[in-house]
Amino acid sequence: MSTSILATYASDLSAAGIKFYRRGWVLGTSGSARALVTPEPLRVCITASGKDKGDLGETDFLEIDENAAVLYGDGKPSAETFLHSTIYRSKPDVGSVMHTHSVWGTILSDHFFDSGAIEIDGYEMLKGHSGVTTHEHAERVPIIENSQDYECVSREIERVVDEDDGIHGIYLRRHGLYTWGKSIAEAKRHIEIFEFLFEVMGRSLMVGSQSK
Amino acid sequence: MSTSILATYASDLSAAGIKFYRRGWVLGTSGSARALVTPEPLRVCITASGKDKGDLGETDFLEIDENAAVLYGDGKPSAETFLHSTIYRSKPDVGSVMHTHSVWGTILSDHFFDSGAIEIDGYEMLKGHSGVTTHEHAERVPIIENSQDYECVSREIERVVDEDDGIHGIYLRRHGLYTWGKSIAEAKRHIEIFEFLFEVMGRSLMVGSQSK
Amino acid sequence: MSTSILATYASDLSAAGIKFYRRGWVLGTSGSARALVTPEPLRVCITASGKDKGDLGETDFLEIDENAAVLYGDGKPSAETFLHSTIYRSKPDVGSVMHTHSVWGTILSDHFFDSGAIEIDGYEMLKGHSGVTTHEHAERVPIIENSQDYECVSREIERVVDEDDGIHGIYLRRHGLYTWGKSIAEAKRHIEIFEFLFEVMGRSLMVGSQSK
Amino acid sequence: MSTSILATYASDLSAAGIKFYRRGWVLGTSGSARALVTPEPLRVCITASGKDKGDLGETDFLEIDENAAVLYGDGKPSAETFLHSTIYRSKPDVGSVMHTHSVWGTILSDHFFDSGAIEIDGYEMLKGHSGVTTHEHAERVPIIENSQDYECVSREIERVVDEDDGIHGIYLRRHGLYTWGKSIAEAKRHIEIFEFLFEVMGRSLMVGSQSK
Repeated sequence: MSTSILATYASDLSAAGIKFYRRGWVLGTSGSARALVTPEPLRVCITASGKDKGDLGETDFLEIDENAAVLYGDGKPSAETFLHSTIYRSKPDVGSVMHTHSVWGTILSDHFFDSGAIEIDGYEMLKGHSGVTTHEHAERVPIIENSQDYECVSREIERVVDEDDGIHGIYLRRHGLYTWGKSIAEAKRHIEIFEFLFEVMGRSLMVGSQSK
Repeated sequence: MSTSILATYASDLSAAGIKFYRRGWVLGTSGSARALVTPEPLRVCITASGKDKGDLGETDFLEIDENAAVLYGDGKPSAETFLHSTIYRSKPDVGSVMHTHSVWGTILSDHFFDSGAIEIDGYEMLKGHSGVTTHEHAERVPIIENSQDYECVSREIERVVDEDDGIHGIYLRRHGLYTWGKSIAEAKRHIEIFEFLFEVMGRSLMVGSQSK
Repeated sequence: MSTSILATYASDLSAAGIKFYRRGWVLGTSGSARALVTPEPLRVCITASGKDKGDLGETDFLEIDENAAVLYGDGKPSAETFLHSTIYRSKPDVGSVMHTHSVWGTILSDHFFDSGAIEIDGYEMLKGHSGVTTHEHAERVPIIENSQDYECVSREIERVVDEDDGIHGIYLRRHGLYTWGKSIAEAKRHIEIFEFLFEVMGRSLMVGSQSK
Repeated sequence: MSTSILATYASDLSAAGIKFYRRGWVLGTSGSARALVTPEPLRVCITASGKDKGDLGETDFLEIDENAAVLYGDGKPSAETFLHSTIYRSKPDVGSVMHTHSVWGTILSDHFFDSGAIEIDGYEMLKGHSGVTTHEHAERVPIIENSQDYECVSREIERVVDEDDGIHGIYLRRHGLYTWGKSIAEAKRHIEIFEFLFEVMGRSLMVGSQSK
């Protein structure tokens, strides 16, 4: 792949990452983002591990192959690359996967853990999710127990994604959100829709206004 | 209309949109803004559908006529253009209509739905609304049930606007705010006044300080 | 006064105003700021009325004399110029007065209205106030009932400032904060200290942690 | 030390300080940051006292020696330089110390004062702390009573740091956070991790979701 093509992906992912940083969703070098460059052979542009998302630039990205071997760039892929790949394999039309760590998402993933999912319905903003055409939509964000055993988490993600084709994201408990989209723009939009709705739900819990 | 005139409107609307994005009021490509360019024949500058409000630029705007036909620019008008036009027809002195999706507005529109309106009174910031000269003013923001049947919503908006000439905005439940102004600057000011007061009211509900 | 000197004051006040706008303390063209240029004859640089604080520039400021007559610049001084002048007359060492409208200040001014003041003590940040050398300091922010009768408010401000020489600010109920400083930098610092502490106190009311 | 080396440290510390200012963690000229330049002889780059952290630039930093004598730059080291040095002496591998004053940290330091520490466990973000490899980690942030007697506070810090080698930060009650790292980047990351987790914990107290 030419360097200039990788640079375009890196530039679009950087712009999204910097905006997420400003909103407090990828503090402390957390979070990650990837974009499919070519499907055959599989080439992916992904944030290198440990980068400050508030200062992302072209040199903070790697080109990797299907085995996560680094073909271009300095650094190593984040440990979570494995989880990104799982989503990618289960959903062949996905062109980008993004991962954020927000305050409200973290809180909701704990609050709703026993019920298995964050359930969101009745909000116009749900229409920002690909394929959703009405606010009368029940979005389900499955919550998976967090673990450092990435193979275990990966199997869980695979199971959950296969089970419910309509979902747009998965939450690792007290860890963070995974979402995806056909393009970088769509994945970024999905992050913003989810994080907005998490904040609405979290604050509503405090106001006690979930009385519809 | 000359392209350069359209560019001026697009530039002013972009500046407002980017500020709203930074405050979290138009995330996930939500929200929209329009400005009247000429009344006869009717020419309007409006955000194209699905644009990222954090990156608005001149090419993200369209010039449309009274039937929402695109005269200039790439893309299509948002589905809500229909609702903007309703407000515009009911209030002939309106030069700009803006629409935001904020966390606090969403919560209040649900919390106060049964009482029919968000009622705000006694705050100095109310004087930021056109024609209001004292904090001893009772502002009423009618709440309309959200629906994907835009003709139905449009009729409701028309009824509400005709019924109460003194209002400065309307809330679609769990959807977003519509406000307007003689100019882009006035519409932007009205958005900021409303969103500020929604946040004050929402947080006051939690503190329990509405005890005047 | 030379235009270039005025420009320097306008530039410093603009920089502060834009930062306050970003924090949400001067939305909807609210808020104002002034700086003393010369004491004899009295010349003051002040924000013109109705300016968007997120876009402040040199042309948004006026030079006025002791009677608030505009000597330089386009626009009129804000109605609150009168209140700024009252503070200025009562405290001859004041070089700058600033006025913000924040969410938390608005809420606290209502919550503590019956007790007559927002009382803050025991926080290290209090040392940001001029002359305060320990966190074991009790800061009192008198709350004055809001009114559109500026002469009445002015007399109240005068009384309150004369009564308690140690205060660094005054709150108009459900309206906003007035603070001051020897220089623009000091007045800006006082605004930030107050607004930080208002947020700490407002959120503490919700957490219920005022249990020292 | 050459001026250009100092400028590099000052530039990296400035970039961190400006980001913290934007998040509201160093308002009102509060907060401070330092970086080790050379260990032998001891040369440290540190923020001069009373600087606005939103406008930090190269000239806002000093080079000081082991006795806090200023070798280069205009201004004096902040009073808290003494406390920074204590941490530095106790932890010889520390290359940078940072100090922030946040709303949530202030509230938690008061709320948990009687239990002696802010205790955080079970969050993925804990892995942002140096040496932590799993979310199943219990981080303890000792809370020390605030005092203007810096010798007394210094002894307390020394005692606490010596007692528990695994900690990454200390909180002065109702004052602020001290953290450190091998490099400026690591200290900045630790600040962001702590402040994120403080916000999660503070908001969780309100939602009542600490029910794991």
